[in-house]
Amino acid sequence: MAYIGPPITVADVVVRPSRSIIKQSYDARERRNDSSLPFHLGYGNLNGDGFGIGWFPPDSACATADHTPCVFTSITPAWNNDNLNRLATKLESGVIFAHVRAAYPGMPVSEANCHPFQWGRYIFMHNGVVAGFMQIRRRLLAELGDAVYNAVQSFHSDSAVRLGDAGGHRSGIKSRGTAPHSPSLALSPPLRPACSIQAEAGMAPSDVSLLNFVVSDGRSLIATRYVSSADEAPASLYYAEGSAYEREQLSGEEGDYHLLYSDKGSRVCLVASEPVTSAAHDWCEVPANTALVV
Amino acid sequence: MAYIGPPITVADVVVRPSRSIIKQSYDARERRNDSSLPFHLGYGNLNGDGFGIGWFPPDSACATADHTPCVFTSITPAWNNDNLNRLATKLESGVIFAHVRAAYPGMPVSEANCHPFQWGRYIFMHNGVVAGFMQIRRRLLAELGDAVYNAVQSFHSDSAVRLGDAGGHRSGIKSRGTAPHSPSLALSPPLRPACSIQAEAGMAPSDVSLLNFVVSDGRSLIATRYVSSADEAPASLYYAEGSAYEREQLSGEEGDYHLLYSDKGSRVCLVASEPVTSAAHDWCEVPANTALVV
Amino acid sequence: MAYIGPPITVADVVVRPSRSIIKQSYDARERRNDSSLPFHLGYGNLNGDGFGIGWFPPDSACATADHTPCVFTSITPAWNNDNLNRLATKLESGVIFAHVRAAYPGMPVSEANCHPFQWGRYIFMHNGVVAGFMQIRRRLLAELGDAVYNAVQSFHSDSAVRLGDAGGHRSGIKSRGTAPHSPSLALSPPLRPACSIQAEAGMAPSDVSLLNFVVSDGRSLIATRYVSSADEAPASLYYAEGSAYEREQLSGEEGDYHLLYSDKGSRVCLVASEPVTSAAHDWCEVPANTALVV
Amino acid sequence: MAYIGPPITVADVVVRPSRSIIKQSYDARERRNDSSLPFHLGYGNLNGDGFGIGWFPPDSACATADHTPCVFTSITPAWNNDNLNRLATKLESGVIFAHVRAAYPGMPVSEANCHPFQWGRYIFMHNGVVAGFMQIRRRLLAELGDAVYNAVQSFHSDSAVRLGDAGGHRSGIKSRGTAPHSPSLALSPPLRPACSIQAEAGMAPSDVSLLNFVVSDGRSLIATRYVSSADEAPASLYYAEGSAYEREQLSGEEGDYHLLYSDKGSRVCLVASEPVTSAAHDWCEVPANTALVV
Repeated sequence: MAYIGPPITVADVVVRPSRSIIKQSYDARERRNDSSLPFHLGYGNLNGDGFGIGWFPPDSACATADHTPCVFTSITPAWNNDNLNRLATKLESGVIFAHVRAAYPGMPVSEANCHPFQWGRYIFMHNGVVAGFMQIRRRLLAELGDAVYNAVQSFHSDSAVRLGDAGGHRSGIKSRGTAPHSPSLALSPPLRPACSIQAEAGMAPSDVSLLNFVVSDGRSLIATRYVSSADEAPASLYYAEGSAYEREQLSGEEGDYHLLYSDKGSRVCLVASEPVTSAAHDWCEVPANTALVV
Repeated sequence: MAYIGPPITVADVVVRPSRSIIKQSYDARERRNDSSLPFHLGYGNLNGDGFGIGWFPPDSACATADHTPCVFTSITPAWNNDNLNRLATKLESGVIFAHVRAAYPGMPVSEANCHPFQWGRYIFMHNGVVAGFMQIRRRLLAELGDAVYNAVQSFHSDSAVRLGDAGGHRSGIKSRGTAPHSPSLALSPPLRPACSIQAEAGMAPSDVSLLNFVVSDGRSLIATRYVSSADEAPASLYYAEGSAYEREQLSGEEGDYHLLYSDKGSRVCLVASEPVTSAAHDWCEVPANTALVV
Repeated sequence: MAYIGPPITVADVVVRPSRSIIKQSYDARERRNDSSLPFHLGYGNLNGDGFGIGWFPPDSACATADHTPCVFTSITPAWNNDNLNRLATKLESGVIFAHVRAAYPGMPVSEANCHPFQWGRYIFMHNGVVAGFMQIRRRLLAELGDAVYNAVQSFHSDSAVRLGDAGGHRSGIKSRGTAPHSPSLALSPPLRPACSIQAEAGMAPSDVSLLNFVVSDGRSLIATRYVSSADEAPASLYYAEGSAYEREQLSGEEGDYHLLYSDKGSRVCLVASEPVTSAAHDWCEVPANTALVV
Repeated sequence: MAYIGPPITVADVVVRPSRSIIKQSYDARERRNDSSLPFHLGYGNLNGDGFGIGWFPPDSACATADHTPCVFTSITPAWNNDNLNRLATKLESGVIFAHVRAAYPGMPVSEANCHPFQWGRYIFMHNGVVAGFMQIRRRLLAELGDAVYNAVQSFHSDSAVRLGDAGGHRSGIKSRGTAPHSPSLALSPPLRPACSIQAEAGMAPSDVSLLNFVVSDGRSLIATRYVSSADEAPASLYYAEGSAYEREQLSGEEGDYHLLYSDKGSRVCLVASEPVTSAAHDWCEVPANTALVV
């Protein structure tokens, strides 16, 4: 999931909501079932193979400040991680990413494979799978220029390699200046190269890639919801926008959050695989094969 | 779960069965629901806070061989652990323990808190909870003699402290010589001290302790199924016994296993929170507040 | 080591100095040799059993901000930790702690045993050893009130237990208001209880405790340099104070730092087991059995 | 280091010798200094970025036994790892590998990057460095056939990629039948491909590769000591052979070991970067650019 808006603690987005991503790490409700996968993946509700958070640090007066986004990852599950709980209540940012991972066969549990990935001034994460990644990895990598090839953080993760691909094309990662804008929807940017490689490799169109990406440069945010086959459902993706994002009451470790709607327009946007607040009307589904630009 | 019988690979018990403990680590079906616990515990089907295996090494001719049981533990989930997968297919033993952990509040995720625990020539694990452990820990520890107190591996785990308690009393851990015997059932050994301490501490009888212990010295095995209140159900516990434990077919990574019944009598016994083979008639429920002695 | 002064990135204190604590983690030069310890401890130059950083978050306008200090710990060595390198260049604070650990026998490598420890609004760390900790642990713990006893993060670390002791007495952790002050030296606060317990336990005075503590509430900082025997040298401790702490040049990952001395008085203070800047005249040794109050 | 001979506990080779590889993990004495590396590498005595052990399981009567070698790796240092200490005293084997790692820049600390590597019935490890690996990685990988490419465990380790290279050529990994033989020395097998790639990439001959490999199929063992420049010293490599390998006395956790020499000929061989026993005459240096075949 990702947040863009006024600075807020990471915990308010990642830890404290009653339906936070930490709950989604052991009780995801909308992941597609796929009986060809190992049971703990195909069953569809478990994301316990590590996690990560990413955020853009607040503005700083320090001469030595680093303005690139920061990432913290761990190979233990998100639901019981002391470092996460401590960091989340202290860190504040206007752009926050969080990801809980379900490791696919051939893509080991390691910090380097945990999302989000940081690359220069960008932060990126992926929910889904590149169909037949282990079969087409070599061809995907061959498409990359040397600079991009050497910057890929892991060749053992379909997501990290796709970031390299996206980075090579710089497709769509153009900042729209001051943000957040009213979110707008556009046709998904050209994610074609992987598809043609898959066809070359003899993969059937029924081997479905699910490419829900979120990328940000700290000012804008783009989220895609993409499925490679018109006959299949994409992985779930929702967004919520409003003038403010607030907790119902301040006491307690956990609580419910909601969006406010005033005449000040849209100042906050969240995107997530599953609604994070319990008010269903806060959330809109992103249409299939569409990109959300904030 | 635990196995006692002819030497077998750890994988045949822990990894390969279609309903192995690894599946139980993310899809436990019989854990009690308890809405007072954090969601990922109260929901009841997740044991992802580390795991451990224990086994007695085969007989050795090496002068330097250590005859105490061996333990391997890890804080990452069992379902995606390369060391476990490699070790399990190579290690062989006649007494094998395996445990997947759900960490309760106040009892951190750490290797020292992972079951099974080894103590001299014994190996021990616990499924359940000591009610109000954080409130009565100090009194429980005060009961222990110095030697036992200093041997407790972790004061931050109700189970490790209970092992200390059991060790202090040496209750019931008497070997019955050559094993396995036909399993027999007995009244559970005196687990009273904790109960009286709980009463002193003002805990209501409705604060229920679930004390399913398994302990072995490499020749015998004792498993308890205990609940502190007559009004509540104990944690689940089953056993299966037969003349042999075999895989249906040898191909593939996973498969179904079953017990054989010949006139040679009982030579194999498994105990587990949930049946590990799919043949329901292989398994008997251990009655509440009873100890199984093999 | 610890820093108090104007907000600065954690990296400027912990990572980038040419003689940073990360270098001290594999090349400590002033640790006492002790041939009774396992070789990797007695040899004296290795602190590779995990590390931690602690800091007080900057002031925040967020209603949900948590004003207690934050801690990040890891069981892998500090010299090759990606999370540390990423966090350190992004986090800014006016009070920063960092610690690299050498685990003594009986005190396992675990996140819970890594310094610094956070307790309410305090942060605490220890360099040294409580002599005979495993022999006197039970008596040390018996001295603690219930509230303190239950708050001790680990009973398997002499340092965590000593924090409990210090917390019980609240000795000396009195804030001096706006900070930093000109550092002043005082006789070390009463660390006697452990000593009398050691005597009761029959330990020889030659079993030496080294109690270099640093504690802060975010406004003041107290550092002790204590050895229990007049015949033995304490663990090393230095401080540096000045009007500013600056990097010589801004390029490159690493560099040398120095203190500036203007007429504005003392605004920055660092304490460390070994000088962090290469200008020897920046650093004063804290006398034995003395507390530095900043 | 590696052992081939009669079955023995892993601890007798890896943990208990007074100059065991665990000591070498924090006090390596013969690593080359290289001031171009980060301080903790160039300084030359620290191998704390994870470790691994590998061994061939003893013969088994189990139908489900896996006869490939087993590997256990960890990202925490070898000198304080409870799993290692427990496993080592229980596991017995006639072919044992152990490796302590110093991670080079660009090759992260991860279990997948820890040696030894297992591949089918082979086990492999590397001490040294492929010069300019990050610059030539892409070309090295391009040399590999698809089957080998996809079997490489990590593309982020020069050693794992070199194993792929060696595996592609199958150079020299031919078993000599029953073992161990009297060790014999041969010219090092063709390690040329990497060199010509390095030349193509414009690397100066002074960028030196150090390629000390050890590989075994459980019956034979081959160890190379290779340096790419005639002007530079290779990484250290010694071997010891005799009729038996024994501990001086059986008491205590640690002790000194020595080789025996009887008329029964050579039945034991050890290879190591530094002598593991204190009897200097037990050890012969492997000449530069030579392979030892046992």
